[in-house]
Amino acid sequence: MTFKQRLEHAWLKNNSLLCIGLDPDLQRMPQQIANKPDAVFEFCRSIIDATADLVCAFKPQIAHFAALEAEDSLKRIIEHIKQNYSDVLIILDSKRSDIGSTAQRYAVEAFDRYKADAVTVNPYLGIDGVQPFLDYKDKGVILLCRTSNPSARDFQDLIVAGKPLYQHVAQTVANKWDKHQQCMLVVGATYPKELGAIRKLTGDMPFLVPGVGVQGGDVAQVIQHGCTKDQNNHHNGLVISSSREILYAGQAKDFASKARDKALALVNTINKCRT
Amino acid sequence: MTFKQRLEHAWLKNNSLLCIGLDPDLQRMPQQIANKPDAVFEFCRSIIDATADLVCAFKPQIAHFAALEAEDSLKRIIEHIKQNYSDVLIILDSKRSDIGSTAQRYAVEAFDRYKADAVTVNPYLGIDGVQPFLDYKDKGVILLCRTSNPSARDFQDLIVAGKPLYQHVAQTVANKWDKHQQCMLVVGATYPKELGAIRKLTGDMPFLVPGVGVQGGDVAQVIQHGCTKDQNNHHNGLVISSSREILYAGQAKDFASKARDKALALVNTINKCRT
Repeated sequence: MTFKQRLEHAWLKNNSLLCIGLDPDLQRMPQQIANKPDAVFEFCRSIIDATADLVCAFKPQIAHFAALEAEDSLKRIIEHIKQNYSDVLIILDSKRSDIGSTAQRYAVEAFDRYKADAVTVNPYLGIDGVQPFLDYKDKGVILLCRTSNPSARDFQDLIVAGKPLYQHVAQTVANKWDKHQQCMLVVGATYPKELGAIRKLTGDMPFLVPGVGVQGGDVAQVIQHGCTKDQNNHHNGLVISSSREILYAGQAKDFASKARDKALALVNTINKCRT
Repeated sequence: MTFKQRLEHAWLKNNSLLCIGLDPDLQRMPQQIANKPDAVFEFCRSIIDATADLVCAFKPQIAHFAALEAEDSLKRIIEHIKQNYSDVLIILDSKRSDIGSTAQRYAVEAFDRYKADAVTVNPYLGIDGVQPFLDYKDKGVILLCRTSNPSARDFQDLIVAGKPLYQHVAQTVANKWDKHQQCMLVVGATYPKELGAIRKLTGDMPFLVPGVGVQGGDVAQVIQHGCTKDQNNHHNGLVISSSREILYAGQAKDFASKARDKALALVNTINKCRT
């Protein structure tokens, strides 16, 4: 099964394009959890168990674990998802990049150590920094294209031969790199028009779309400009990621159910726009 | 003291522009070390102790540690350098990139967790993904500009307003981002002409230059095109990095002294070209 087929299965299983980003932050999680010795794992597990039937993927962001020296927690969190919610995909958000021989070690980190289903990768070094990830043919490789942050403009919008750099990245990935239906692109929800332009260039390649929620992206516009239709006329093609807005929806004992409420509301909003 | 002043001090202390990259590989290190329970630390410590008087910096590449679940070894290696060779700088080669709030967690990883003196960063996300690193004003922030790998050309050479993208990156860093004499650029030794073009655009900003050795970069050309002169007419401005050629120079018990021989030969070659 290709990665894309697994993703299509995940979309259908819970009828959801939502991905919840796992960005554990001891300052923001409820005090009674933050004080526990295994806080990072406990917090993420609570969120996962409360929301796993609402999502197509979880996306642990590795910086949040690395800053807390919590590699072991990250590993156990991924194991927990795999054991209990095997249809839900795990995207390791690490945005790695290096020359080939080193990128190969990052691929080992993502796919052998953590056993992620997909990993985010920065394209600036070109194909030989990406190939070691692509060599895991059944895994997803998600290339940064047009990111959700304000200064994405600094370089990604520079005009090359009449069109912005990010469009060259999109076309290169779609036309040259994606030989095994395993590539995706990161396209920020905060730039819906750019999302539409990239959709036109890349057929039905799936996008990972962060930036809904705290960063201000609008769901209806994202669906309108970014979705594709499958053979059953389902609107999909997107993995819409939200992190902080869901994770930190509540500060009391019921934080996990508050997170679920927020996730459910977002899924409903997304699904209303998909019809 | 600015990071640049610390770097100038390190160049003078051992009269060396050489940086040794620490890329531990259990398949390539001598068997008698690889079989030890603390192999990664023992190997790196042996290399460090044999070469610390020949270098201005050590550059642990974090993927090689992450792939081996050796974060703890990395931490102890950096402590070992700081305790015993306090003039030698530690560059954490991690090429991180993300939106601001996440980049801040990567800055914590590099500077608070590992206590590196400098870190490599990918510029594709623009200034707000770099600012959290720059906020550590006495630390070095080393932006990828023209990397040493063959497919660096894929995107870095695309022409924007009459000149290649990597030159826009170089100018942006030099003119806008480097307000505290803390920035450097990664420029591969494998492209000496590009090195010269970037030197012309960036004054006396220091470069981290990988690609000498296994990757084929020529020392004389690197010095000719990349060096600057300080007020005492010393040629410097470069941190020339070599990893595998030095680390794996020997396979027997005397691997550390073989590494030293290789490092000394490279320093001598570099210094001959500097006069």
